[in-house]
Amino acid sequence: MSAAPVTAAPTTWSLAVHGGAGGMSPATLSAAAQAAARAALHTALAAGAAILRDGGGAIDAVAAAVAVLEDAPQFNAGHGAVFTADGTVELDAAIMDGRNRRAGAVARVTRTRHPVDLARAVMARTPHVMLAGVGADAFALTTELEQVANDWFKTPERRRQFAEGGATFDRAMKYGTVGAVARDNDGHVAAATSTGGVTGKKWGRIGDSPIIGAGTYADDRACAVSATGSGEDFLCAVAGHEVAAQVRLAGQSLTAAVRAVLDEVAAGGGAGGMIAMPRTGEPVLTFTTTAMYRGSVAADTPATVAIFAED
Amino acid sequence: MSAAPVTAAPTTWSLAVHGGAGGMSPATLSAAAQAAARAALHTALAAGAAILRDGGGAIDAVAAAVAVLEDAPQFNAGHGAVFTADGTVELDAAIMDGRNRRAGAVARVTRTRHPVDLARAVMARTPHVMLAGVGADAFALTTELEQVANDWFKTPERRRQFAEGGATFDRAMKYGTVGAVARDNDGHVAAATSTGGVTGKKWGRIGDSPIIGAGTYADDRACAVSATGSGEDFLCAVAGHEVAAQVRLAGQSLTAAVRAVLDEVAAGGGAGGMIAMPRTGEPVLTFTTTAMYRGSVAADTPATVAIFAED
Repeated sequence: MSAAPVTAAPTTWSLAVHGGAGGMSPATLSAAAQAAARAALHTALAAGAAILRDGGGAIDAVAAAVAVLEDAPQFNAGHGAVFTADGTVELDAAIMDGRNRRAGAVARVTRTRHPVDLARAVMARTPHVMLAGVGADAFALTTELEQVANDWFKTPERRRQFAEGGATFDRAMKYGTVGAVARDNDGHVAAATSTGGVTGKKWGRIGDSPIIGAGTYADDRACAVSATGSGEDFLCAVAGHEVAAQVRLAGQSLTAAVRAVLDEVAAGGGAGGMIAMPRTGEPVLTFTTTAMYRGSVAADTPATVAIFAED
Repeated sequence: MSAAPVTAAPTTWSLAVHGGAGGMSPATLSAAAQAAARAALHTALAAGAAILRDGGGAIDAVAAAVAVLEDAPQFNAGHGAVFTADGTVELDAAIMDGRNRRAGAVARVTRTRHPVDLARAVMARTPHVMLAGVGADAFALTTELEQVANDWFKTPERRRQFAEGGATFDRAMKYGTVGAVARDNDGHVAAATSTGGVTGKKWGRIGDSPIIGAGTYADDRACAVSATGSGEDFLCAVAGHEVAAQVRLAGQSLTAAVRAVLDEVAAGGGAGGMIAMPRTGEPVLTFTTTAMYRGSVAADTPATVAIFAED
């Protein structure tokens, strides 16, 4: 037998999630709500970690983590998503695989329980990247993915908010997008994002979450990114790809690249946060709002979750 | 009076347009069709040049040039767009202003004669960047933009193609997207793109044209870009922003940056073309297909148009 080749230290898996950036504070978010959100973040991390720990792929881990957050009523994605101006729920999601930079996205779907899985089906089973509206709902029927009535997404809390405020909720409510970035033991990265968009949205508005390069981006040459915040600002900044480009083309550190893009968004009056996973080392979780639901776990690091800046 | 400040030579205006990349050849495109396409490209250049020559803005010029190409039945945008699998016409368009990197986009609209103008209205009159589907059609009704029956977009030639081929047209037919990039005398750049998408599209497919950063991108710090081709490949490459990032972050020449992105698309089995306008100097018009309807004009250069590689 020949000797084993000399290799660099093996890459170890890492996972980060977010449940949206916003104006939450300990004064406005009840202890019970904080505890429920933290528990959901832990469950999402556990779902992704179980895959990565067993040698599973980053793309599987981000899908699993985001699916948990879609089911959690605390966040603005899947079950618990905010209402459009018409009182319906319309969901956007995207997923991207850093290995080959293939991606899938859906916009304004209304019946698939886990939009992130529908985005993945677009990537895996069609020649397309992005499907929208009734057409995307029709595509869902060609898959085995669980279909639900639109009412299934509507939680009592969101119904109450809609009845009270209609289309004019406070800014803090707008930032509930969920997302995940992961690196597997083979060093591949992936990203996924899912959202109900902004409360009271109309005219078929699509934000940054399902836009490849903006709210969701993954590239093994650089990093994986999932964004949350004032979507239009992240869209025009092409936020995810800009972070990756600064790392890949300018040799910028991931921390500095994320900060630069958030600063650009802030200069335009926007706010939000990003989670980003590098090829090696620790993920970056940064936000310019007062809080961001977030958490991370890695091969050598227990899961931790946080909400406020001071957490 | 103080002496005039020393300044660099003033920037001069420049405009480039495309009517889509594809597999056209002198053997498959009749002389009459070639002449009609060349005439339409000249008309589009003249419309944009008239604005730029008078000191008008790049954003106005690209909108005017693209509106001409939307009306021209030779190209797959506006009047003359290809049909979906359902036999309807659904149109995508985007516009971006390099001065402030603000943008507007519409996807799958069915009743606005000039989708590029609707994209501009999204940018100018809403807090949003992207509107889609029936919602975007409803937004159009709040503007003064000309509304038409969906049948208005359907030319006899496209009806014949649909009747004969349905959803399985040759690859060459798929690349009829139109676009424009411009630089005005103040040195600002802008880009616009408009398309009917791919023939026989279904499930609400959205390609790269209306995706800010992919098919359409403009940034005064780098360049303006409009792409045409196999949309999914350009979408995953985040083609427009990648070109701009290579110029801005890596100091790449515009020619080399466009070539690098087209090579990346080709490596993935895709094909198409891009037009790109730098902050100074001449535009780049490059394609990996056998042909691309294209043309350019500048303050000091008469209008020229071309179709085939050897033109």
